[in-house]
This record gives sequence, C-alpha cells and structure tokens, in this order.
Amino acid sequence: MSDIAFLSELSTASSSKMVLLVLDGLGGLPHPDSGLTELETANTPNLDRLARESACGLVHAIGPGITPGSGPAHMALFGYDPVRFEVGRGVLSALGVGLELGPEDLAARVNFCSVEGGVITDRRAGRISTETNARLCEKLADITVEGVEAVIRPEKEHRAALVFRGAGLSELITDTDPQRTGVAPLRCQALPEGGEAAERAAAMVNAYLDRVAEVLADEHPANMIVTRGFAKLPHIPRITDLYGIRAADVATYPMYRAVGKLVGMEPVETGPSFSDQLDALGGAWEDYDYFFVHYKYTDSRGEDGDFDAKVACIEEVDGLVPRLSALGPDVLVVTGDHSTPALLAGHSWHPSPLLLRSRWERGDGVEAFGETACASGCLGIFPAVDLLPLMLANAQRLNKFGA
Amino acid sequence: MSDIAFLSELSTASSSKMVLLVLDGLGGLPHPDSGLTELETANTPNLDRLARESACGLVHAIGPGITPGSGPAHMALFGYDPVRFEVGRGVLSALGVGLELGPEDLAARVNFCSVEGGVITDRRAGRISTETNARLCEKLADITVEGVEAVIRPEKEHRAALVFRGAGLSELITDTDPQRTGVAPLRCQALPEGGEAAERAAAMVNAYLDRVAEVLADEHPANMIVTRGFAKLPHIPRITDLYGIRAADVATYPMYRAVGKLVGMEPVETGPSFSDQLDALGGAWEDYDYFFVHYKYTDSRGEDGDFDAKVACIEEVDGLVPRLSALGPDVLVVTGDHSTPALLAGHSWHPSPLLLRSRWERGDGVEAFGETACASGCLGIFPAVDLLPLMLANAQRLNKFGA
Repeated sequence: MSDIAFLSELSTASSSKMVLLVLDGLGGLPHPDSGLTELETANTPNLDRLARESACGLVHAIGPGITPGSGPAHMALFGYDPVRFEVGRGVLSALGVGLELGPEDLAARVNFCSVEGGVITDRRAGRISTETNARLCEKLADITVEGVEAVIRPEKEHRAALVFRGAGLSELITDTDPQRTGVAPLRCQALPEGGEAAERAAAMVNAYLDRVAEVLADEHPANMIVTRGFAKLPHIPRITDLYGIRAADVATYPMYRAVGKLVGMEPVETGPSFSDQLDALGGAWEDYDYFFVHYKYTDSRGEDGDFDAKVACIEEVDGLVPRLSALGPDVLVVTGDHSTPALLAGHSWHPSPLLLRSRWERGDGVEAFGETACASGCLGIFPAVDLLPLMLANAQRLNKFGA
Repeated sequence: MSDIAFLSELSTASSSKMVLLVLDGLGGLPHPDSGLTELETANTPNLDRLARESACGLVHAIGPGITPGSGPAHMALFGYDPVRFEVGRGVLSALGVGLELGPEDLAARVNFCSVEGGVITDRRAGRISTETNARLCEKLADITVEGVEAVIRPEKEHRAALVFRGAGLSELITDTDPQRTGVAPLRCQALPEGGEAAERAAAMVNAYLDRVAEVLADEHPANMIVTRGFAKLPHIPRITDLYGIRAADVATYPMYRAVGKLVGMEPVETGPSFSDQLDALGGAWEDYDYFFVHYKYTDSRGEDGDFDAKVACIEEVDGLVPRLSALGPDVLVVTGDHSTPALLAGHSWHPSPLLLRSRWERGDGVEAFGETACASGCLGIFPAVDLLPLMLANAQRLNKFGA
C-alpha cells in the first residue's frame, strides 16, 4: 500500500517520537572464507540486543532484482514510491550544495574534466581539490547566456552543481558527458519528445559550454566541464503536510540533506562524526516527531570493496547505539537504503536487513542483526515504501480504515 | 515491480548465461502417511546440494489462491504480467502445433466428440488415436466458409487446433463446447461487446461447424467437433528486444514451445527425453544467453494422481542435474510453473519451490529442495513476474535505477 493520499487520510496526532537510522549500503554478501556478510561478521552486541527486542525483516527499495541509487532508495524509506516520484540527478546535486530550486529552474550534475586536442583525457581532471573546484566555479560565476542566469556551485573534488534560472526550459535534453575518454565532449541535444522548449534549452546549454571553454582555456588540468542528469524539481508533497509530523534530517552528506529537504524535512546542524550526529539528535529531540539519521561510511567502504573497513564502520555505529536508545524513541528503525556488498564494490539489488523496535510490535525469535537472521523475521520481505506506514502505526499516528 | 518497460530501460549487456529449469507442476501436497510432498519424498541429492548453494524461496504465478494454467504460469516466469498479457487458449493451441498466426487470424481449441441423437455422448470421442485425429483433420482440410480459409491441425488424441484466416474477425464469441454430455453442442454466439465483427465471426463459426457435421456424418465415434477459447494473437514485446538477451527454448511439448515463441525465444531442436534436452542445451550453449528448459512429466503424473510416479520423475531429473551444473551457468533457477499435487490430480494454487544459484546471492541455510524448506529461504514468497529481474540482476544485466 504505497498510496500517500490514502495514508495521509488516516494520519492522526500523537506525541510519540520516531527515529529512522539508515546505515547507507548496510546489506552485504557473504565473505567466501566465512560465509558471513559484513554485518554478520561485525561484533554488534548492541544491534543484536535491539534485534532481539524488535520485529525484523528484509526491505527492498524498489523491487526484487532492482539496484537503486541513493536518491530513490531514500525516497522509498520516506514513504514515496520512488518510480512515481523520480528525482533527477541534477536536482539532487543542486539541493545538495544548498541551492534553492524554483519550479522553472533546470539543474545538472557537472564534472570538471581535462581536454587535450579536442578530446577528453580525464573525466575527473585528476580529481582536482575541492579548493581548486571552488576557485574555478568563481571564475565561471559571471557567465550569462541569452539572458539566462547560470549558477555553478562546487561539490567535492571534481564535481559541481549547475542551475539555469530560466522560465520555459525543458529537461528533455541529453548529457554532454560521453562517460569515456578519447572522445570530444558531446553537444547537448533536444530529445524529440521535448519539442521547442528542449531545442531552446539545448542551444542555451551549448552556448554556456562554449563560454566555459573560453573562460577555462588557460587552466590545467581542469580546462572544461561535462554535464549530465538535467532535471527540474518534481512536485513532491511535504511529509509534514501529509502526516502532520515535524521531521528532522540529521545527515552529514549534502545528497542526504537534499533528499530530506525535498520531502519537507528540516536540516539539523551537526558535526561530521556519528557521535556529533547523536549530539545533534539529542539537541533537537524536543522539537521534532520524526528523525532521519544517516550514516554514510558503510556505503563508502562497500564501494571501496573493503570488507574489513565496512565491518569496522558497522562496529563504530554499534558502539554508539546505546546513546540512541537512551533517548527513548517510541519507534526505532535501523536499516540500510540498499545493499553495497564489498564483494561487488557497488550498490546491489539485495534487500536490506531491518529492525523495528516499538512496544507495539511482535517478536520473532531473531537473535542477531544480520541478513540471514532478518530473512526469518516477522516483517518478512517487503518494499521500503511500506516502512513509513509501519512506523506511523507503531507511533499510534494512524487511524483505523473503515468501521 | 512487474513493469517490463521499466526493466527494459535498466537492462545492459553482459556475457553471462542464465538457465531456467521448469519442472512442470513441481509443487505438491503432503502424502497423508508420511507428511511429505512428492519433492520431499523423492531422493534428490543433487537438487538438495544445489539448494544449499542457492538462495531459495516460494513463487506464485499470479497470486495467493490463484491456480494458473500453464500458459499464464510460464508468461509470469518469463517476466510478463500474466493478467495483462493474457494469451488465449486457442492461440496457444495453434502455435503449439506449429501454425503461424497473423494479427487478424482467429484461433480456437478443438475437441473431436461423439454425438448421438443430437446430443453429445462423449466429449473426447473415446480419446481417438492421434492417427485417427490426423485422418479426420485431413478430411476437414477443404472446408472454406464465406471466403474465409479454415485450417485444422491435429494435436494429441482427440484434441486439435483450428485457425480462421480472415480479416476483421472478433474473438469476442462464445465456446460451442458445453463442457458436459447429454446436451447438444452449443451454437456460437457473439458477445455483446464484440459488436458487428463478433456477429460475423459467430455466423462464420456456425457455418463452419455445420459443414463439419456433414463431412464427419459417417465417422464413428468422432462425428463432430466442439470449439473453445477463441482468441487472436496478443501483442507481446519480444524478450530479445526488451533485454537484449538471446533466448533459447529447450522444451519438448508443443504448448511450451508455443509460449516460448510468443515471447521471442528460439526453439532448439531436441529429442523427447530429459537427457536429450540436456544434449540440446549443451549444443546451443554458445549461441544464447538465456535457456528455458521444460520438463513435462512431473505435471502429467500429478494430473494422473500418481504420487509415486511423480516422485520417480523428480528423481529422474535429479540424476541428470549434474550435467546441467557442469555447463557452468552464471545463474541457474530450478522451479515449477505451478503446483500439481497428486492428491488433487490437477493444477493448484500452492506456490512452487524455487532455488536460484549464482555467485552473487546470499545463502539462507536451506538444506534441501522442498516446499517446507524453501518457505524459510531468503527470497521469501514472491510473484513469478519478479523472477526475471532477479535473474537479470544476478547475471549483472541491470543498471542501477537513479543516482
């Protein structure tokens, strides 16, 4: 049941508190030597105790076999069908660096790159420093094409976000990033279904990129940019309006602050460590009903293919779980947005282990927090979009349907 | 997530090989004496070993409680929503005997029957031999009504396929098989929603059946036919076009070669035994990415209500499983299309046990291949239409959705 209007109709007030702790890319695959996943390998006495006190299960972001990006995976955990509410990469980038987006703005993801003799020699310009990136964005700040303002803002290393502030631009245009070296950056083209608005947008993008090439001509190694994921802000109803809950976003990475913002969460100031995030959580405890706490490094170490480092990240979180429990949330969920097995060194389709602790849940005999243990949990294997109804129900924030 | 357009968008190339082995009607019900199903009774050391190395689960073709025919059950296993892509019985019959169907052709399933004093005395004409059937079809070959060519082709025993080659005929007409004896064959009638095209089709069918009665008047016991399942070819996108995979159909029965053909699989020549099929599989190994291997007799013996004979069929397959494994498929699935419990002597709604072996799947502690064991597998209980995404994911043939 993923219909947010239906769910919104049923929602009612309560003073209960809900916490969703997402360990990014938590799920894994068994190590060939031990047959145990990263989570099953980690020494996690606190998460295991929680699992024993919880209803457990496995959750997939989109569906069996489908590997999600972080954007759609989080949209699903927040209760939004991620295919219906698809958020473009450009939008996530722009919101992630703190750019405000209006409904007519067109956003894209940018890479600084190296071009020699007309062809791309490095799609990441040698991973230039974030400082260099900021200086280059400064140089590009004055470019205006055909009356349209172009805002470019640095992300980490070679990545940046680009927004065109203009009315009537279509997002139905192609990437200029060829996704490989040895060829020229592509020209932006209108997709046939985009009509005249796409033709204008593509022409404007190309004019902008020509200006960028002139301004960066003397730079080295970052003398050009490539763009991808052109997108406009989709219409997404706010979680507060839907369910009457004040939602706080305790994430450190821009991307996860961006997704939270998109659904109407308020960002809470926090330092970079998980301990800092728990401080921030405690500080905001009285002001919100729902808290999204995001831990990034399980995913990062999985992407690195570093099994042991991912294990260590999980153990770091486990050590601090008692501070989270001590706040006394009425509903506490610990899960991942998707799996990032070290063996695959990337996102995967495997469902994420999940525990939900509340005084109103059944137990299920799950003795430890792990993929295999959660497979026999009483929540079964379910789509992530069903998590929010489960949390709201346990928070006693949903009325009965029908008489 | 059963949307083939969504899945098609995500698909990408790989050199991996996938095998889907369907033991028709595999699932069963416990024998009252032992409490074990046919599969659990059978001695299956090879399938059990596979199960230990696999992710296991239970799969239902359409939904809990719904007993599928073989057509929709296979459509689901091939990744097509069997309700949306409903294939009429007439179409399956016609394709099954090797008749080509154009978009305007109207196909039906035929039974030869016995009529005395105007009423049906045997709906199967004493199960006449296939040879007699062929001779009768030959006699009927010359009938043409109202300028429409009628092609009739024998299946096994009393069954045949009938195709009207004509433009503008509607399939919205009724069966003439009353499904019981002691009454006259029904007249074909237009369904109200079929309009004028259905009126014309019904009139043509009735004119054809009048001619059949004349031609067969002196025959005994098969002196008439009844028709059912009028249908036209539905539009079904080919599996090759959707996912860029070359798919081979290693089935022996016409019906299963027909369903494969319908979704764009190429039939592979094979002898009648399971050993022959494995020879054919090995011979075609280099030429395809996806192989559908179909074993019929588990279903046949289940339909007979013969528990022990079904057990023996399962053991026959088990003995040859090592030859299948030796080919080294990247993804190997063994399952049924539906259950055919000997105790019910017919198809049933119970989900089918399933194992999926790939280097990228989690284990789940399932120690044997059986209905009860698979119920605790890490794939859970899932709709068959989700199998193809799981197979494609494990074959690393699906890109990530979103950023």
